[in-house]
Amino acid sequence: MCTDLKTSRFKIVIAYDGTEYAGWQVQPNGISIQEMVEKALFQILQTPIRIHGSGRTDSGVHASGQVAHFDCQKEITPPLLMTSLNRILPGSIRILSLEKVPSTFHARFSAQGKKYTYHITHGHPRDPFNRFYSTHVPRSLDVSSMKLGAKKLIGTHDFTSFANIGNPTKDRIRTIYSIEFMEQNNQLAITFHGNGFLYKMVRNLVGLLLEIGKGKIDANEVTSILEAKDRKKAPLAAPPTGLFLSSVDY
Amino acid sequence: MCTDLKTSRFKIVIAYDGTEYAGWQVQPNGISIQEMVEKALFQILQTPIRIHGSGRTDSGVHASGQVAHFDCQKEITPPLLMTSLNRILPGSIRILSLEKVPSTFHARFSAQGKKYTYHITHGHPRDPFNRFYSTHVPRSLDVSSMKLGAKKLIGTHDFTSFANIGNPTKDRIRTIYSIEFMEQNNQLAITFHGNGFLYKMVRNLVGLLLEIGKGKIDANEVTSILEAKDRKKAPLAAPPTGLFLSSVDY
Repeated sequence: MCTDLKTSRFKIVIAYDGTEYAGWQVQPNGISIQEMVEKALFQILQTPIRIHGSGRTDSGVHASGQVAHFDCQKEITPPLLMTSLNRILPGSIRILSLEKVPSTFHARFSAQGKKYTYHITHGHPRDPFNRFYSTHVPRSLDVSSMKLGAKKLIGTHDFTSFANIGNPTKDRIRTIYSIEFMEQNNQLAITFHGNGFLYKMVRNLVGLLLEIGKGKIDANEVTSILEAKDRKKAPLAAPPTGLFLSSVDY
Repeated sequence: MCTDLKTSRFKIVIAYDGTEYAGWQVQPNGISIQEMVEKALFQILQTPIRIHGSGRTDSGVHASGQVAHFDCQKEITPPLLMTSLNRILPGSIRILSLEKVPSTFHARFSAQGKKYTYHITHGHPRDPFNRFYSTHVPRSLDVSSMKLGAKKLIGTHDFTSFANIGNPTKDRIRTIYSIEFMEQNNQLAITFHGNGFLYKMVRNLVGLLLEIGKGKIDANEVTSILEAKDRKKAPLAAPPTGLFLSSVDY
């Protein structure tokens, strides 16, 4: 699989069930997705490989299209490496694609946008099959009001009200291109497409939409919550369980 | 919830993730779904309740609509009992409905038909999110041939070739009303609707359809396999992972 010493850059697309992991990023307390993939690469290539993700995901958050890159001084046959990785990795982590990219490609800095999807089950007993992949709300949600509230989030705004307190990021201006709702029976999937999201921003936005859906906050209050630029003016974050990093645009 | 001594019969519809259970039926080696529901009923009603399922499901097999009945000498408020059961039961088991029925109703003997759905992922790395709910076949399956083979299984036949050896059931004639295929990207769901199925029959039928899909058996051989009335003429059973008991007709 590997023969010479020319450095090449590779891009991988990864899907993972985050339920039993301590999130994407390598950390001392718990096993991360990044660590699992790096260990599998080491096992195959017999050389330490550091992978760079498009961004981190929290414990319990899933990905259907996380992207990472890594450099390797060995000549790699991409399809063979992908098969080997999927053979070593547990079923909770799958490499969906692996390809050689120019050395200017960077999973994080080259990203032009991201899509996150948040899954909600409402108004019925929760389906046992999506209990790790969907947040359960026992009452029926007013989806029309949620859509109305979501519309007011679209566009370029200072999202300080949805940035965790203590977040060191100074530039909190982000653009949300679209927020799409998919409904099927008692299942609701909300997809956020934006040029970037602050840490926990999607869960904080969903926390607000859930309160609107429950009738506790009026959809018209969204603008004033945004304008307040105060995390305390917006409701608590929604749980990680229903959140998926769906794709990264380059 | 319970006040007098008149015996009433109740019907429950149950969904469960069978991954971590030793099947439906109470047994000495492992925890069964039946046992979990009976224990929850005991905890609420403080009297031993025996529940009777429409039939057993094997370890690893799921249900989106298993049906059971039980008798209770206490006056029950169905919605309250259902809520209490769902509060006690783990998220892998959900009571979808609970209602009073005439004492002539029997979950097993009153059943007029059943639907089973078998989920397959083929031709791509397996999605981490359905690894417990779908059987993975790395190569692409020839679904047209599988449909052709399935057509030959529809109708009233002696299904001895699809009954496990040692099955004591003498009458192996069953009627399959329909076999429906649902395709979405690399996902395939095959739904069998029949008046009843022998033990492991659905998995044995899927085992045959998978071999047809892989090109190892010709769809035209189905009739001679059926007519042989010999389990050894048909391929091995498909794994339990992708199988769901979808509904029971009364």
